[in-house]
Amino acid sequence: MHILITGAAGMIGRKLTEALVARGTLRGEPISAMTLVDVVAPVLPDGIPGAALAADLSDPAAAPALTEARPDVIFHLAAIVSGEAEADTAKGYAVNLQGTISLCEAIAAQDDYAPRLVFTSSIAVFGVPLPQVIGDDVQPKPLTSYGTQKLMGELLINDLSRKGLLDGISLRLPTICIRPGKPNAAASGFYSSILREPLAGQRATLPVSEDTRHWFASPRAAVGFLIHAAELDTSGLGQDRALNLPGVDATVGDEIAALARVAGTEAAARIDRVADPAVAAIVAGWPQAFDPVRARALGFKAEPNMDTIIRVHIEDELDGQIG
Amino acid sequence: MHILITGAAGMIGRKLTEALVARGTLRGEPISAMTLVDVVAPVLPDGIPGAALAADLSDPAAAPALTEARPDVIFHLAAIVSGEAEADTAKGYAVNLQGTISLCEAIAAQDDYAPRLVFTSSIAVFGVPLPQVIGDDVQPKPLTSYGTQKLMGELLINDLSRKGLLDGISLRLPTICIRPGKPNAAASGFYSSILREPLAGQRATLPVSEDTRHWFASPRAAVGFLIHAAELDTSGLGQDRALNLPGVDATVGDEIAALARVAGTEAAARIDRVADPAVAAIVAGWPQAFDPVRARALGFKAEPNMDTIIRVHIEDELDGQIG
Repeated sequence: MHILITGAAGMIGRKLTEALVARGTLRGEPISAMTLVDVVAPVLPDGIPGAALAADLSDPAAAPALTEARPDVIFHLAAIVSGEAEADTAKGYAVNLQGTISLCEAIAAQDDYAPRLVFTSSIAVFGVPLPQVIGDDVQPKPLTSYGTQKLMGELLINDLSRKGLLDGISLRLPTICIRPGKPNAAASGFYSSILREPLAGQRATLPVSEDTRHWFASPRAAVGFLIHAAELDTSGLGQDRALNLPGVDATVGDEIAALARVAGTEAAARIDRVADPAVAAIVAGWPQAFDPVRARALGFKAEPNMDTIIRVHIEDELDGQIG
Repeated sequence: MHILITGAAGMIGRKLTEALVARGTLRGEPISAMTLVDVVAPVLPDGIPGAALAADLSDPAAAPALTEARPDVIFHLAAIVSGEAEADTAKGYAVNLQGTISLCEAIAAQDDYAPRLVFTSSIAVFGVPLPQVIGDDVQPKPLTSYGTQKLMGELLINDLSRKGLLDGISLRLPTICIRPGKPNAAASGFYSSILREPLAGQRATLPVSEDTRHWFASPRAAVGFLIHAAELDTSGLGQDRALNLPGVDATVGDEIAALARVAGTEAAARIDRVADPAVAAIVAGWPQAFDPVRARALGFKAEPNMDTIIRVHIEDELDGQIG
């Protein structure tokens, strides 16, 4: 079992690598090699044969070189984030669209080779107007370059999978919460920071009202989705290989209440409410909740509630300690 | 008014060129130059300054060269047909997807330049299951590489138009009928040939049952759509710049009845019924009829019925004479 991970130096890529090394197997076979690639070279874990490479998938030579050894399973996580794709149109299309096309075409160009390709799409494929709860039959109409690029990738993967040239599955990941690390400039950053900073004994800023509702999964759940997708029997997926995924449907108020339950009211008191109409306007266009019937039936599982999402963060990032 | 037409040597491209020359103006301005491009050099009409070029849009250097002179209106018709895109996956993506991406990116890369881009998409963006009459809100789910490539082009054009980097509109053309010229191997060929051959005094073969229903527009109507799209006020289009278009909803039986009315029962008797289950299976997955409310409200017009489609062919292709 040879596994290729693009975007392996990112937060999800590193956690996926760790989880695969901890399992030791995928699809019932021992993991014999891993190829990890990102724009900066990832770190290859001890004891796993393979390679950690710096490469840019928007370079047409990169994907053929990466797929030449015919990895059995490919996790395609490499992407630039939503804000950067919106600000730098050319770079967004080069990485998020051409990188995906290049990878898919390099696979399709090889005879008798149709590896499992797990592609991280996003709930950003959906744009307003949206129902409050998004069923599996709601049409994606992206209103960002990032969402457009992800949806174009889904369509390509559907078509090449239909032709048997690869065996793809596209996962529309919920917003990852609690994202570990430093606060960043992403419009969605507050969803994590209003939990992460108080758990670490620091103050956080909330720019939107408490009734703002969104769809969440922990980094641990995201890694679980990816591994489940790699092992799934795709024969029952039909022509549409893009899935809305389970998640936790929570308002900002729900997040704060869960924080108080798990970490005490003193933690929940570390949130400063500083309205930012620009951020509020951006998040108003985002999906609120899903009813992912297909993905649940296929066995994808997220946390049951925000309390669990917070406990996962405490276990995985804080060594069980609240600041 | 400088006009660029890709795919200008094709049937629609030639008719569009003729129609533009006959009008002499577009968007209220005299046509001062035309750049016609195709994989084989088109013929530049007399009296119009410009260039007729052989170029392949899948060559990355082609689109920047074509758009350097900043044409005011671009008709992007260049594509390989459905059957070839299905059979030769790499070529289909190179021409139908990369050609479109390359053209759009060459436009977007120029400062202060957002020309009207009229893109010929197709009803092939829709795949089964489909309602018998397709409303404007039905989600495209392509089941062919051609339909996938056209839908990906639509999404790109929506996104770049939203950003003001071009001013695009995608037309999901009905099946063109009566297609002039020789019978060809396309699965849809019989829709035209059962009219065209009898009108020329020759026999034609019908491979499907007479209740097979489909959506048609004449070549003249298609050219009308393109010119209307070039002149349309796009400010009211919103984020979705892809339109289902008006057409004639007709069964094969309706076609034959119209042929008998327009050209006599002896013409309609020149059709040999030779069932071809393979063709029947292909066309069973195609859209039957549309209710294109948006496009009608925007002023797009097709023929009122199949009789008119036949008369248009007699006028435009047969000098008014029935064989």
